[in-house]
Amino acid sequence: MALLLDQQFAPLPDTNEIATKTFLESVAHLPPFFDCLGSKVFAPIKADINGNITKIKAVYDSDPVKYETLQQILLIEKSIYGSEWPKVGATLALMWLKRGLRFIQILLQSLADGERDEDNPNLIRINITKAYDQALKRYHGWIVQKVFKAALFAAPCRSDFLKALSKDQEVAEEDCLAKMRQFLINFTATVDAIYDMYSIMNAELDYLV
Amino acid sequence: MALLLDQQFAPLPDTNEIATKTFLESVAHLPPFFDCLGSKVFAPIKADINGNITKIKAVYDSDPVKYETLQQILLIEKSIYGSEWPKVGATLALMWLKRGLRFIQILLQSLADGERDEDNPNLIRINITKAYDQALKRYHGWIVQKVFKAALFAAPCRSDFLKALSKDQEVAEEDCLAKMRQFLINFTATVDAIYDMYSIMNAELDYLV
Ligand SMILES: CCCCCCCCCCCCC/C=C/[C@@H](O)[C@H](CO[C@@H]1O[C@H](CO)[C@H](O)[C@H](OS(=O)(=O)O)[C@H]1O)NC(=O)CCCCCCCCCCC
Ligand SMILES: CCCCCCCCCCCCC/C=C/[C@@H](O)[C@H](CO[C@@H]1O[C@H](CO)[C@H](O)[C@H](OS(=O)(=O)O)[C@H]1O)NC(=O)CCCCCCCCCCC
Repeated sequence: MALLLDQQFAPLPDTNEIATKTFLESVAHLPPFFDCLGSKVFAPIKADINGNITKIKAVYDSDPVKYETLQQILLIEKSIYGSEWPKVGATLALMWLKRGLRFIQILLQSLADGERDEDNPNLIRINITKAYDQALKRYHGWIVQKVFKAALFAAPCRSDFLKALSKDQEVAEEDCLAKMRQFLINFTATVDAIYDMYSIMNAELDYLV
Repeated sequence: MALLLDQQFAPLPDTNEIATKTFLESVAHLPPFFDCLGSKVFAPIKADINGNITKIKAVYDSDPVKYETLQQILLIEKSIYGSEWPKVGATLALMWLKRGLRFIQILLQSLADGERDEDNPNLIRINITKAYDQALKRYHGWIVQKVFKAALFAAPCRSDFLKALSKDQEVAEEDCLAKMRQFLINFTATVDAIYDMYSIMNAELDYLV
């Protein structure tokens, strides 16, 4: 079934080092996630995330040995760019990409946990809003926050979203949620490790867009 | 001075036929117009318009003789695509592009005419809203209309916009407005001719996005 959920992320090694090549292959399956939201309104988000992936891939492809892990990318770019860093290169692209990944992770986790608006059990606005508040809101100025609030009305209902995640096959809701929980194990570990890396390397920025 | 305003469109010939090559060269200068609005919020609009231009250019480049004029593109695509037409190919791309061009035209005309909100003389929201209402609103569902309303707050003030149009050079406001009026002559004639063509060919659609 699921487009997204069948593409498991690789388990983290004990060192928490993330292999760039494997990571890029796994995240490449995520932009279609925004098509599952069912509206063209989300096209600019998909484009932004695709842009991040392309940027990281270009750095990796320039020297696959040198940039073998995400950690190496940050370390090397820090030494190359000096005071421009970390608002530059693949470091910047991954800084934003991880926020999009965190958004997806929290949204799926919230659905898997059965969190819902009892008055509107077939809407996922409450889950999307939770993910947005925790992953992105603090990096968005009030205008983009207002745009988000407007775009939220384009979100699909719960059943359509689950169906889209299952590539439109008839899949029992419980099976889809079970797949989601399975997917979340390595995915969450990967996203956490990237956040830890930005924190350890002091590479996180909190400017607004 | 102006980035945008120094790139005059070609005058229309008596036949009102628009040469594809010249047209594509002229419109290529317009996407930077959205940078003059000064906020990244407008990046998706710029991308949409760039997408239209790329699509038309690809059709033209596939056979520059066959697609010498915009009229020929519509005629040939109509015969190629049958009942799929006009929601297809360069015909669709130009259908949307002309709406973006009309938006720009009405905005500049309104500024050139000195229309302003007397309570907020240094804002251009009133001019942008006029352009949006006349050129685009009817093709946008309520969610995109709401997004527009939110994005409007990212619009620059009048003086910054005029300065940006003048490539940040110090140019007297009156000189900038004079350039604008000059630019609008051929530009408006071109946009009008494209609208006439869609009307004559019965190629206009009014579905919502
Ligand atoms: C007709 C009227 C139309 C008016 C037009 C209004 C358009 C509204 C604007 C929409 C914004 C789209 C989202 C994109 C926002 C982006 O601005 C931010 C920062 O984007 C980063 O910026 C960096 C420089 O600062 C680099 O360029 C990064 O690029 S680099 O690779 O070059 O380094 C880039 O990703 N990304 C973000 O905020 C990330 C967004 C992830 C979103 C996750 C899901 C949210 C889901 C919401 C569901 C409801
Ligand atoms: C973190 C939260 C983030 C949430 C994200 C929310 C993002 C909001 C969405 C923003 C919409 C951006 C504008 C783009 C709208 C587009 O949907 C429409 C139709 O676009 C057309 O669609 C066709 C198919 O139907 C073809 O694909 C065309 O493509 S084709 O070439 O392939 O044939 C394509 O241009 N174009 C439009 O409406 C044209 C827009 C022109 C705009 C002119 C100026 C407006 C200025 C406003 C100033 C205030």
